[in-house]
Amino acid sequence: MRSNQRRFFLKSSAAGIASVALPSYPMFASAAETSTNAEKGKDATRILAQYALSTRYEDLPPNIKREAARAFVNFVGVTVGSCQHEAVNISIDSLRPVSGSTMATVLGRKERFDVLNAAFINGVSSHVFDFDDTHLVTNIHPAGPIASALLAYSELKPVSGREFMNAFYLGVEYTIRLANSLAPNHGPWHGSGTFPSIGAAAAIGRLMKLSEQQMIWALGLAASQQVGFRDSFGSMNKSFNPGRSAANGLFAALLAQKNFTSSNQVIESRVGWAVTMSSTQDYQEMLGDLGSRYEIAKDTYKPFACGIVIHPALDAAIQLRNQYNLQADQIQSIVVKANPNTLILTGKKTPQTGLEGKFSVYHSVAIGIIEGRAGEKQYSDAAVLSPKTIALRNKITVEVDNAIPKKSGEVTITLNDGRVLNKFIENAVGSVEVPMTNEQLDAKFLDLTEDILPRAKCKSLLADSWRMAELPSAGQFAKSTVA
Amino acid sequence: MRSNQRRFFLKSSAAGIASVALPSYPMFASAAETSTNAEKGKDATRILAQYALSTRYEDLPPNIKREAARAFVNFVGVTVGSCQHEAVNISIDSLRPVSGSTMATVLGRKERFDVLNAAFINGVSSHVFDFDDTHLVTNIHPAGPIASALLAYSELKPVSGREFMNAFYLGVEYTIRLANSLAPNHGPWHGSGTFPSIGAAAAIGRLMKLSEQQMIWALGLAASQQVGFRDSFGSMNKSFNPGRSAANGLFAALLAQKNFTSSNQVIESRVGWAVTMSSTQDYQEMLGDLGSRYEIAKDTYKPFACGIVIHPALDAAIQLRNQYNLQADQIQSIVVKANPNTLILTGKKTPQTGLEGKFSVYHSVAIGIIEGRAGEKQYSDAAVLSPKTIALRNKITVEVDNAIPKKSGEVTITLNDGRVLNKFIENAVGSVEVPMTNEQLDAKFLDLTEDILPRAKCKSLLADSWRMAELPSAGQFAKSTVA
Repeated sequence: MRSNQRRFFLKSSAAGIASVALPSYPMFASAAETSTNAEKGKDATRILAQYALSTRYEDLPPNIKREAARAFVNFVGVTVGSCQHEAVNISIDSLRPVSGSTMATVLGRKERFDVLNAAFINGVSSHVFDFDDTHLVTNIHPAGPIASALLAYSELKPVSGREFMNAFYLGVEYTIRLANSLAPNHGPWHGSGTFPSIGAAAAIGRLMKLSEQQMIWALGLAASQQVGFRDSFGSMNKSFNPGRSAANGLFAALLAQKNFTSSNQVIESRVGWAVTMSSTQDYQEMLGDLGSRYEIAKDTYKPFACGIVIHPALDAAIQLRNQYNLQADQIQSIVVKANPNTLILTGKKTPQTGLEGKFSVYHSVAIGIIEGRAGEKQYSDAAVLSPKTIALRNKITVEVDNAIPKKSGEVTITLNDGRVLNKFIENAVGSVEVPMTNEQLDAKFLDLTEDILPRAKCKSLLADSWRMAELPSAGQFAKSTVA
Repeated sequence: MRSNQRRFFLKSSAAGIASVALPSYPMFASAAETSTNAEKGKDATRILAQYALSTRYEDLPPNIKREAARAFVNFVGVTVGSCQHEAVNISIDSLRPVSGSTMATVLGRKERFDVLNAAFINGVSSHVFDFDDTHLVTNIHPAGPIASALLAYSELKPVSGREFMNAFYLGVEYTIRLANSLAPNHGPWHGSGTFPSIGAAAAIGRLMKLSEQQMIWALGLAASQQVGFRDSFGSMNKSFNPGRSAANGLFAALLAQKNFTSSNQVIESRVGWAVTMSSTQDYQEMLGDLGSRYEIAKDTYKPFACGIVIHPALDAAIQLRNQYNLQADQIQSIVVKANPNTLILTGKKTPQTGLEGKFSVYHSVAIGIIEGRAGEKQYSDAAVLSPKTIALRNKITVEVDNAIPKKSGEVTITLNDGRVLNKFIENAVGSVEVPMTNEQLDAKFLDLTEDILPRAKCKSLLADSWRMAELPSAGQFAKSTVA
């Protein structure tokens, strides 16, 4: 199938795709339009449809198969781990009376739903801890909505693990590429709600083996459904966005499969998706080198359940703790050096709730030293209000310095015996440069799921998540997430 | 309850609402921002929630009750009339395998669905003939998605006809007000897909008797779901948009009722709905004089199933035909005088299909003279290809004249006996100035439904549609649309 990949590479080039900003629709335009640029997106919807239908798991390079597996393992851990969250409970209570079908699994829960609402609820669950995968350039979280739509569909029709992982790669890849193409000027939109519907429709359409025309319609119907503004941050609406995006992509594919029509160019039309959703469009990012450049490789996983700007200091603190086997009562003072952003976004000195703790560099560094990790449990209300944590966080000073990049940080610990320990972190664990190891992903998975499922079940589910591509049935996998 | 209305009037004034354009988000801005203008939309979401919850059918002025009834009668006629359309058939085929519940009616059909998918399918059906109500200033079609969401909900929970008609008024009113507020610069968005989700959430939320906070969340979750670009025109995607909007509004209300949270200001936020969906916002149009200014009064109904620019000529032709009892074979020639727009948009001289006929002023005037009307049936393929129609349309000449306003037109008919008949139409029937009479709405309803339901059933359904506000059960009404 290398020839297939080449074909797409050539087609993309032949279409004259280049990294030039398209004019936005007049209403949104901030610069003069030039109609020649409009040609750059020519056939974008069709090119996306064609490549999607050509993808096969066996054609993916080993490192891409590995990254897809890592993204899936992380998804299953956070989604099962979040399955008792209030937003999930409310979704279940709200939709149970209107969902007659019990076809599909809510991950980790005994309640079963129709596939559309199951896709929604799992999408909510995947994001509600804010602990899902992150594409750092665009700050979107692609895996949750794609996997949620695919797992639901896998209980409607038989899907092998291999087909599932190919479709999962495809959906995540498209979601990131679409984001790369528009995100720099995506404005108030919440990219984790806007892009995945299209990725999910492509992924489901691949499983359905749609015709090229049907796939074009599926992409058009999916692009027609745009979800979520950044104003939703801080409410359940934030998790609603990827959840609804998952359901919308599945909905689009279901209709297109029966020949519900759309246009042939919703993505690139002058009165369509791309010009409306951003003032700039980079079609090279969207369409270039499909099948040879893999954006999923840049997906990352958060090791810590707190604001990303805290991660370098937290990484430094935990490394020092482990290296010197530190106990809190040995410590006289801690100085964190960080970019000013860290204090602006996470400078809360006396957090009162777990959620506030996630935006406190003080609590995070303290709990990291006490417990050696900073997962969901380290951000419970009890953890934030514990006298031991409070005592240690009161010993912390944060010094800001514009010379320190946002991605870096430094921790200096002075012990009661006079020793001074120091650690500078250029790239925190969980970044593209220093990705979480598979073992760290395992630990995160087990930490998240151990209160939901019996320990032995957690371990078997983790093993199955890693080897999803070898499992005979993705639908059976979904069912197996329930105790 | 006049005091309630006054309270809202005063509140709106107190909030300092004025007809000033807000700055758009920087990405979309084409002019300098001034932050003082951002205050104009203050509390918009809350004001909408408060007024929605205060509405009562008995407080509506008689002419507004009458207009709501007219909009509802028109909705039932077109939706039942379209229920065998291919887009409806495909929707049913696509969604049947995923919709386990059979709670709600697809109007005119025996198949039953869960409420969310029934809302979608009826919304598609309401628009697919392009014969639904039209708010001419913004060119949106508000009644379909609102009534579709409400009827579906009425089969989930008991709703009286009176409550239904109040909620229907509210949903249509909000949909038009939101459109008035943004539509002049709504760009590539399809307003019949973007605005109704919020109107539907308000309407359903009113039936649910949500708390003010829940209603705010419902509006926020609904506003977070934006559907449809103008690129969809010409495909089923166009009808998808109001259909999905109906389902989205219902979905939002179902979640908010169980306290799924959103922010308190999705509508007016600087990173929310209004600034993203248009480069200008007129909050006076959106919020001013709620309960004393009624935008639903400006809803109109199409008497003819063709492009709106043909309507003045068609109206003139049919009036001459009726006045002189004309037969096609008496006619030597016909001259239509029209604004140039008429030929640009509907200048198709030899249409080959019914759909092409809708964009042919020639076919439309010919068939209008032959049959005295121009409903769906006059735009069948057979009607367009009939030798008698073709013979008459070949006698038609169109002369364009910039001096004739778009809303006007003139027809001059020369008979074989030498007589010359002339009619100038300033405002065509179906305009705000010359609304369709109730009798014309009756005829349209019966014409649309007579192939779907037995004649006696059509008449009883028409009578019930007019007296919906007096019926004990809106859910029972929905069921009664099926033969």
